[in-house]
Amino acid sequence: MDGQQYAVGVDFGTLSGRAVVVRVADGAELGIATHEYAHGVVEERLPGSDLPLPPEWALQVPDDYRDVLRHAVPAAVAAAGIDPADVVGIATDFTACTMVPTLGDGTPLCEVDGLADRPHAYVKLWKHHAAQGQADRINQLAADRGEAWLPRYGGLISSEWEFAKGLQMFEEDREVYDRMERWVEAADWIVWQLCGRYVRNACTAGYKGILQDGAYPTPEFLGALAPGFGSFVTDKLDQPIGQLGDRAGGLTAEAAGWTGLPDGIAVAVGNVDAHVTAPAAQAVSPGQMVAIMGTSTCHVMNSDVLREVPGMCGVVDGGIVAGSWGYEAGQSGVGDIFGWFAESSVPAAYAVAAAGADESMHDHLTRLAAEQEIGEHGLLALDWHSGNRSVLVDHELSGLVVGQTLATRPEHIYRALLEATAFGTRVIVETFRDSGVPVEEFIVAGGLAKNALLMQIYADVTRLPLSIIDSDQGPALGSAIHAAVAAGAYADVPTAAKSMGKVRKSVYLPDERRAAAYDALFEEYLALHDHFGRRTSTMRRLKAIRRAAVERRISGGAGR
Amino acid sequence: MDGQQYAVGVDFGTLSGRAVVVRVADGAELGIATHEYAHGVVEERLPGSDLPLPPEWALQVPDDYRDVLRHAVPAAVAAAGIDPADVVGIATDFTACTMVPTLGDGTPLCEVDGLADRPHAYVKLWKHHAAQGQADRINQLAADRGEAWLPRYGGLISSEWEFAKGLQMFEEDREVYDRMERWVEAADWIVWQLCGRYVRNACTAGYKGILQDGAYPTPEFLGALAPGFGSFVTDKLDQPIGQLGDRAGGLTAEAAGWTGLPDGIAVAVGNVDAHVTAPAAQAVSPGQMVAIMGTSTCHVMNSDVLREVPGMCGVVDGGIVAGSWGYEAGQSGVGDIFGWFAESSVPAAYAVAAAGADESMHDHLTRLAAEQEIGEHGLLALDWHSGNRSVLVDHELSGLVVGQTLATRPEHIYRALLEATAFGTRVIVETFRDSGVPVEEFIVAGGLAKNALLMQIYADVTRLPLSIIDSDQGPALGSAIHAAVAAGAYADVPTAAKSMGKVRKSVYLPDERRAAAYDALFEEYLALHDHFGRRTSTMRRLKAIRRAAVERRISGGAGR
Repeated sequence: MDGQQYAVGVDFGTLSGRAVVVRVADGAELGIATHEYAHGVVEERLPGSDLPLPPEWALQVPDDYRDVLRHAVPAAVAAAGIDPADVVGIATDFTACTMVPTLGDGTPLCEVDGLADRPHAYVKLWKHHAAQGQADRINQLAADRGEAWLPRYGGLISSEWEFAKGLQMFEEDREVYDRMERWVEAADWIVWQLCGRYVRNACTAGYKGILQDGAYPTPEFLGALAPGFGSFVTDKLDQPIGQLGDRAGGLTAEAAGWTGLPDGIAVAVGNVDAHVTAPAAQAVSPGQMVAIMGTSTCHVMNSDVLREVPGMCGVVDGGIVAGSWGYEAGQSGVGDIFGWFAESSVPAAYAVAAAGADESMHDHLTRLAAEQEIGEHGLLALDWHSGNRSVLVDHELSGLVVGQTLATRPEHIYRALLEATAFGTRVIVETFRDSGVPVEEFIVAGGLAKNALLMQIYADVTRLPLSIIDSDQGPALGSAIHAAVAAGAYADVPTAAKSMGKVRKSVYLPDERRAAAYDALFEEYLALHDHFGRRTSTMRRLKAIRRAAVERRISGGAGR
Repeated sequence: MDGQQYAVGVDFGTLSGRAVVVRVADGAELGIATHEYAHGVVEERLPGSDLPLPPEWALQVPDDYRDVLRHAVPAAVAAAGIDPADVVGIATDFTACTMVPTLGDGTPLCEVDGLADRPHAYVKLWKHHAAQGQADRINQLAADRGEAWLPRYGGLISSEWEFAKGLQMFEEDREVYDRMERWVEAADWIVWQLCGRYVRNACTAGYKGILQDGAYPTPEFLGALAPGFGSFVTDKLDQPIGQLGDRAGGLTAEAAGWTGLPDGIAVAVGNVDAHVTAPAAQAVSPGQMVAIMGTSTCHVMNSDVLREVPGMCGVVDGGIVAGSWGYEAGQSGVGDIFGWFAESSVPAAYAVAAAGADESMHDHLTRLAAEQEIGEHGLLALDWHSGNRSVLVDHELSGLVVGQTLATRPEHIYRALLEATAFGTRVIVETFRDSGVPVEEFIVAGGLAKNALLMQIYADVTRLPLSIIDSDQGPALGSAIHAAVAAGAYADVPTAAKSMGKVRKSVYLPDERRAAAYDALFEEYLALHDHFGRRTSTMRRLKAIRRAAVERRISGGAGR
């Protein structure tokens, strides 16, 4: 192996793309550059249009992704101070499920003459939530028919995924649907742009595309959803699968022109931001659960065995690393709950004190929270402000805080919210364990890894050793690892991860006395969890009352 | 009746006393003056002492009460611009249960040589909560023995009341207890100071002194609580009872000197601030529930019938008006919950907006809350931040908010808290109704009556017409009514109330559409109420966990 070889990883996020240049020998990150999408998230109206989009829509403009290749990649190479000729491969990871409708050659429909004013011709971003009705019907029908693939997704597929979004387009703009020749994950579309070949990656095909044991939902099932939809897989979706770390093709002359990288170098099969982080954290063995903790948390873990874990997001053969069963779970709200609280629920005096101590509001609240004895706040919270992904899979759930007195202060509630997310994680860990997929180590990536109090709480609550990824560029580093493998510099991803991944092992260890103190609170959390999540419909009815109230307002109101 | 006759009412609160001069003919309030207690609430250390008081103690200095007579009464007369010779009577109302230990002549023990450094020689203010252990034992023993008086107090007597505080003194400072010849309600002690006679008023004797059907708890019961305590009633407590509105005696020369009022004028039997407000609001008939709504809410209502209402504070013969059964109930926290929220849970931007609109924070939040459709916030709260007095009688309960999302704003939670207190009131109203004591009208006194949104919510939630007392001096006006009756200007309190009381009838009427919208939320409230208040011990365990955490902190800590 030659110290002069480099790989480029590009992480496509919700608002920007980030390129990093990594040394193949040891994973050293030598240059980084970010490029913001010119159109960001399109939620209000299409570019150049005055027509408002309906609620819950979230679109993107695909040329914004090409711009990342044009700007961020050359800038990262320049920042690294390397000779571009020494770059041996490029790999990408993407948000998912983010879908691009294209012609047969990969041209996005919104770039086709006459379709620029059609919302369904644009990219549907992962957080486009306007296909909930379609998802509900898919789930109901699959449950009624006992479809074998349903338990692989914890019993429910999401409105964010390929079939719900595809069915929405079929039903709402048949003309655009008929013009569409391929319904492509953005993770694969960007690879198609780089190497000129459409290879469908095993990760999104499995987690978002319901590809299980080599088969998609049947034409009979699809036809029963909507007449005419039965050929959706054959006509729009099916495509040869590429394993993660495989070479999808060589960089085209056009893409070499955009990026300044050598013509023909390896382009890796596409990947997803969360999943690609596992090798970046050297965490690809069974029992190593990687949690990417940001506004929400995504959990990924490999295993040698296939088990049906209630409430998981999915289990996919080769979904994280080729040859292993990849499990995914998630918590819908984590950092965004802390952010919401800090923004909406903390009085002016705290802002003044934080500014005086030169702390962010989060640092300030965390410092005050760290002074509390476990349980001293007398509170318990449910971390369901954005619903519950795993293990209850119910987005009609909502937040709860119990135990307030007139002595309750913001730092008490803040700590209760931190703890609630840890308890939510423990429920996931225990559900995996109880299903025969034990968790031995908890490896954290993402912005929240910087909060030492939060990390210690997670170690104590889960009684697991906590390791922390030793890179601020987890996904991009993970992509660079895949680029190196696709270029042949390593035999496979686990081998590359050993050299190029970075982790600080067992940074936080559980303390038995603290863990025991949390056990008492966790028991109460479980009681609330099961009462509101399983036994009563209070939260569901409150949401129904809320929706009815909004409708009353629109129709004139019952008064206030 | 002569337009030149006046009555003086004096309301003794927690921090100050307030005198008002009222025209006997029509209740016109002509002059008001307030005097703050020099020593306020003694919670840290005795006057002139460095010795700290234990937690939960709350004492007062009785000469502070005499200072109100010396300063506020003459000032009110001067402000009224009347001739003091035209004043025909004076009456007082007091916080309760507030207890003064005295010699046989009414001298407070703390004024006796050699006892000024003994905490138990001082006045124990209503909110002295250090006798909870004694109250628990009284309740347990009474339940075990099936004492007939226990159901008259909804099944539990309070640590604030005469027997618990008396037993605490007996057990903690036997020497002071033995020096004490009388254990006197401050409501009666101040009357004793005015007229030189100790008359025990029927209201506090019944509600706080466990006097039922003419009898106190027996010597056998008391002796079983603590050996030697069996003679407590005979030795310290028993005293002839005076009915509310009766003349206790004539103003002594000394008290005439303090007040500047004529020697010998009528001094009425003592009374309690909440109960005396009912005639001030012309609300002394069966079915008229008066709610004095401030930091907490006290409900008082007369009835012709004796019923055992679960969770009421008490039912007393002549407890509000002589000749009627007086019922009392309460909500431990109302305005203080709103105050806590506004102070601790609303971000700087709201303070800026409120200041910009020249609104108090409460006015600002109320205006924003008023813009919401019923149920639009998607929230439900339990108003138990200070525990639940009626109907659950459990001070280990705590607050709860459910339904939060990342879109939840402070004005949403604020409205949910307003509504929660209305739902708590509805539980009380329905419990009275279900026990055979129907509520027909809801009359509000106290500072929260000024919040029009809150009042409309109460009318809609309870489906009762809401009347509002038309005086800012409810208790003092009520006392002046009693002074006029004691002076013989009216035959009885109800008659005087017709002329001197002031109320705006049916200011808020329930709206059926809104009431129906609240029904759906109330059903959810009841489900939470019963789950957390009756079926599970989650809140109780959280308080136990909290206390254990505080103890761990004191003993060195388990870490945080």
